Amino acid sequence: MKNKDLQLIANSIRVLSMDAVQKANSGHPGMPLGCADIAAVLWYRIMKYNPDDPAWPNRDRFVLSAGHGSALLYSALHLAGYGITLDDIKNFRQIGSITPGHPEFGCTPGVETTTGPLGQGFANAVGMSVASKLLADEFSGIIDHYIYAIVSDGDLMEGVSSEAASLAGHMGLGNIIFIYDDNKITIEGSTDLAFSENVRERFTAYNWHVQDVDGYNHDAIEKAVLNAQKETAKPSLIIAKTVIAKGCPSKEGSESSHGAPLGKDAVAETKINLECKYEDPFSIDRSVYDLFKKRRDELHKIYDEWKSSFGKAMKSGLKDKWDRFFTAPDIDSLRKKMPKFDPAKEIATRSASGKVLEALFAGMPNIAGGSADLGPSNKSFAKGFSESGKRRVGRNLHFGIREHAMGSIQNGIAYYGGFIPYSATFFAFLDYMRPPVRLAALSKLHCVYLFTHDSIFVGEDGPTHQPVEHVATARAIPNLTVIRPADAEETAEAWLSALGNSTGPTALILTRQDIPVVKKENRDGAQDLHKGAYIVHDAGKNPDIIILASGSEVNLSIEAAKALKEKGINAEVVSFPSWELFDKQPDDYKRTILPDSVRKKAVVELGISMGWERYAGADALYITMETFGASGPHNALAEKYGFTIQNIVNRIVDYIGK
Amino acid sequence: MKNKDLQLIANSIRVLSMDAVQKANSGHPGMPLGCADIAAVLWYRIMKYNPDDPAWPNRDRFVLSAGHGSALLYSALHLAGYGITLDDIKNFRQIGSITPGHPEFGCTPGVETTTGPLGQGFANAVGMSVASKLLADEFSGIIDHYIYAIVSDGDLMEGVSSEAASLAGHMGLGNIIFIYDDNKITIEGSTDLAFSENVRERFTAYNWHVQDVDGYNHDAIEKAVLNAQKETAKPSLIIAKTVIAKGCPSKEGSESSHGAPLGKDAVAETKINLECKYEDPFSIDRSVYDLFKKRRDELHKIYDEWKSSFGKAMKSGLKDKWDRFFTAPDIDSLRKKMPKFDPAKEIATRSASGKVLEALFAGMPNIAGGSADLGPSNKSFAKGFSESGKRRVGRNLHFGIREHAMGSIQNGIAYYGGFIPYSATFFAFLDYMRPPVRLAALSKLHCVYLFTHDSIFVGEDGPTHQPVEHVATARAIPNLTVIRPADAEETAEAWLSALGNSTGPTALILTRQDIPVVKKENRDGAQDLHKGAYIVHDAGKNPDIIILASGSEVNLSIEAAKALKEKGINAEVVSFPSWELFDKQPDDYKRTILPDSVRKKAVVELGISMGWERYAGADALYITMETFGASGPHNALAEKYGFTIQNIVNRIVDYIGK
Repeated sequence: MKNKDLQLIANSIRVLSMDAVQKANSGHPGMPLGCADIAAVLWYRIMKYNPDDPAWPNRDRFVLSAGHGSALLYSALHLAGYGITLDDIKNFRQIGSITPGHPEFGCTPGVETTTGPLGQGFANAVGMSVASKLLADEFSGIIDHYIYAIVSDGDLMEGVSSEAASLAGHMGLGNIIFIYDDNKITIEGSTDLAFSENVRERFTAYNWHVQDVDGYNHDAIEKAVLNAQKETAKPSLIIAKTVIAKGCPSKEGSESSHGAPLGKDAVAETKINLECKYEDPFSIDRSVYDLFKKRRDELHKIYDEWKSSFGKAMKSGLKDKWDRFFTAPDIDSLRKKMPKFDPAKEIATRSASGKVLEALFAGMPNIAGGSADLGPSNKSFAKGFSESGKRRVGRNLHFGIREHAMGSIQNGIAYYGGFIPYSATFFAFLDYMRPPVRLAALSKLHCVYLFTHDSIFVGEDGPTHQPVEHVATARAIPNLTVIRPADAEETAEAWLSALGNSTGPTALILTRQDIPVVKKENRDGAQDLHKGAYIVHDAGKNPDIIILASGSEVNLSIEAAKALKEKGINAEVVSFPSWELFDKQPDDYKRTILPDSVRKKAVVELGISMGWERYAGADALYITMETFGASGPHNALAEKYGFTIQNIVNRIVDYIGK
Repeated sequence: MKNKDLQLIANSIRVLSMDAVQKANSGHPGMPLGCADIAAVLWYRIMKYNPDDPAWPNRDRFVLSAGHGSALLYSALHLAGYGITLDDIKNFRQIGSITPGHPEFGCTPGVETTTGPLGQGFANAVGMSVASKLLADEFSGIIDHYIYAIVSDGDLMEGVSSEAASLAGHMGLGNIIFIYDDNKITIEGSTDLAFSENVRERFTAYNWHVQDVDGYNHDAIEKAVLNAQKETAKPSLIIAKTVIAKGCPSKEGSESSHGAPLGKDAVAETKINLECKYEDPFSIDRSVYDLFKKRRDELHKIYDEWKSSFGKAMKSGLKDKWDRFFTAPDIDSLRKKMPKFDPAKEIATRSASGKVLEALFAGMPNIAGGSADLGPSNKSFAKGFSESGKRRVGRNLHFGIREHAMGSIQNGIAYYGGFIPYSATFFAFLDYMRPPVRLAALSKLHCVYLFTHDSIFVGEDGPTHQPVEHVATARAIPNLTVIRPADAEETAEAWLSALGNSTGPTALILTRQDIPVVKKENRDGAQDLHKGAYIVHDAGKNPDIIILASGSEVNLSIEAAKALKEKGINAEVVSFPSWELFDKQPDDYKRTILPDSVRKKAVVELGISMGWERYAGADALYITMETFGASGPHNALAEKYGFTIQNIVNRIVDYIGK
């Protein structure tokens, strides 16, 4: 049944959305028109939020996975009373506006996630649910809300949503309520072109609770959502039969409405059809604001009640605990808890990271994460702490063999707040999860990645599992801090750096193979990691050459430098774990590491040389890995590709001789 | 029921596999032991192949999607009579062997795909089926075979297989027969940790034909495969209940057998359990070879019959047509068919590519491909040619919103042979399909990528849709040729370059926005694209600066050079569409483009500068894009980020003044 108030709200969303797209002369009107009634029900009838406190920890979350429908979201948030004015909506898709083409986290009040690349919002929302369940386990009664999302055909076609859906069903994330905008239209035309699976059956197979509903029957939508709320052991999908561009007589049901303005005539005809009294753009019936005023009054009561019980809980002794979740970690105090590494004992940096991780789990309650089924290899499992499984979450998360969803769920946890999430896989499989890594960087999320098995020294598993270009392609992502520690001590500092970097993700690049603890000649030892690069092996005032190296190649370079010394060549070795950290140093520090006076430089790294030229110069000596690797034992690979002390010495001797 | 011959074959596979892993002291014995009986049935009872002609076009294809079980594949191929000796198996996982850790296409006779990264083989096999159907449409009666694969839990958890499965069901690829090694074990332990979906129901939802079978009942396996063969309208999944490390008493059913040698004792105990008469490694009952000798005799008959009817078909007039599929395209003759572009008319390179594509479809029968639902935006649809849909394939493939599967299916088409496949999406979504792009490069596949919307000039869609680091990260992949053409004419040549490059994939990076046809001052015009870089705007003998630019920034740089001329600055402009093509030029050509005599260089490109230093030097002027973009109109973005003639002029004047 249609409800007059909801119809007014839905039509107001339609008018604002299509006018915004029309004024911007770009955008996606079809989705907002198609989903306006669903949005009206959610914001006016269902969701609990407080525009005056958009960060309210117990608010319901809403994710617009179909991010191209941003006009719908901005219009709904505007009506609901968030800090989005009509002028903001008029500035849709303009530089500096808070209403960009796709929703951007941190840019707009009420926008919970950055969406647009399809499937991401779906998996982010699963991550939010995981976070909410983890937090509710700690703060029972204080955290208890739902995660809503509108998802599209595109979201469901993307593999990442399949991965996330399977895991959500497995973990039994009952507070998930997703509404599927089943409009049977994609950019190329009817879903008949490429999408005829049985979505209901597929999600049932994932152990979801699935309902069908008419996307324009307000009571039915509300009823379905309430049913979904009652289903606490399974995530819910509500398949809403919709029509793209609903309300626009000439474009209803057509893909032409998806990604282009309707055009002035179609806008005018739609307003008549919707019985909108105003011809002027952005003009809507003021009474819609009164409706939301009333709604906010109701919501304020709920909010105040929560605040009161929250306050009581805090007073009754939970405050310290709460603060430990919602305050930045104290790095210096964590440093004191770091394991000590025996300088005489070789240890893989992945293993060092594993030891650090167990200390961190013990030292802070809000670190949570796991691996895409490589826990024993990634050393990413913290023994003695809770773990996820059938119908449960845990601080150790078993993501299954689903790297992409892992990254996107991790983003969801980070968006949610309260936790610092980490994820782990082989470095070569960064490729499987680049979309969420990029979005974490763009959205300034506090995420940590453990990428182990960081070079051809993966060995026998061969080129499919040996990263070569990955160090470079990780460094290429703006606002991703990449750290490739030289040994166990640097690994601990790299973790601390990651925990201290709250404005973007940090990737730790770790070895499979055991490597020595580097003997450091600098005063501050591994703590100089935070400068991005430092002299680890000093060759006095006028070195003949400076070797820049990272990771397992640092110690190798030191050994080469010692052998060079016997040949009368003074080689300085710089441990260079992080370009991004180094780039932030003052110029005079940079000059001490890369003095103009020393013209000859070498780079020793088991990755492509690309980009090192900016530090070493185009005419430096590059002992790098420019091709795919091969399947074989460590030592044979070292010989084949020249990563031996002898070869490094020979090449430097040749180079110096030039 | 168990069959004595098949049991002997299965146990021989077990012995060879576990001995190979044991000798290499690394590898994955659990899967080969678990799936040995399935392999025995496939190679001895089911599949049609000819080890003497591994490239037989009508052979059944076998894909080991669970590529870590490579020892199984090598053992089976050895027994079946392919060119893999016992010595090769003894050299498992050694450098230079034909038995690397994961199967590598082109390295080993009988290995159809490079697998290991999970999910890839599944989707490759779907691509093979697409190719076989396309080819069968052209050569009815000549091409008629099955595509077999063994897939694992990991394959099914990966999103790419969900995407590919949904599409395979949609297109009704009835010659697909996949056997799922349902052993309930992953690296972290039981699948209960993260995987409890109903696989049968999920694949039924995708419109697959699903059967269950005991993975050790030979008759049942055979019967299920024969049933699957009869189901011609749906792909088939056979869920085989298996036990990891089957036959090894102390490790059966345990994840410890997955990725490490069983150990000498366990190997010895397994041999006793399997009633293997020999203690020595790699010793198997010779009679197993007799069995396969008999099998090959049967297969030779089938092969000879096919050869005979193939010969007749060729003689009856199909030879020319066949050769057009299986011979490299004649680039010079294709060049003559290229569209002419009006030099006075601006045109986006994506649109130019669209026109080229229609000419290519008309000019060669074996180009096939499509977009991940962005056909109208990518200009990747060739009107007037067949297209895929419900229960049909076509040269225009509608991949749906599934970039990852698109890339992996494309690889499958390339592995299959006969077609040059292309795919298309927004450049920012390269991230969604990096795994198959890397594998195409590693496996030397002839693939073409159309990545449109190549810079912040995507405009209002904002930073989620604006590639910034992607040009660099594409260039980073070894053996991927990246070409960013400066205009329509270069776009046509870039396509020809891609069609001529049969030893690796080529990515064309194309603009969304219209750009002018560049006025070229060099003799050979756009054909110089094949050199990777050439002088497009000459500034005489001693230019003050050389500007290196690609794509839409070439014309912008020429305009800036003209403005600089008025200020008395001679700026040469080099169109630099491809590093990889340039790197292949002789040194003296390189020096004409990058002469030492001109010290000042600038790079103008709408991407990160990373790596340009090797051509321009670390102290060059970089007018590049080092941060994420923003949502806004083209002109506003040009102003904000300094990609205007005026800003380029100002920055060069400043730089020269230094």
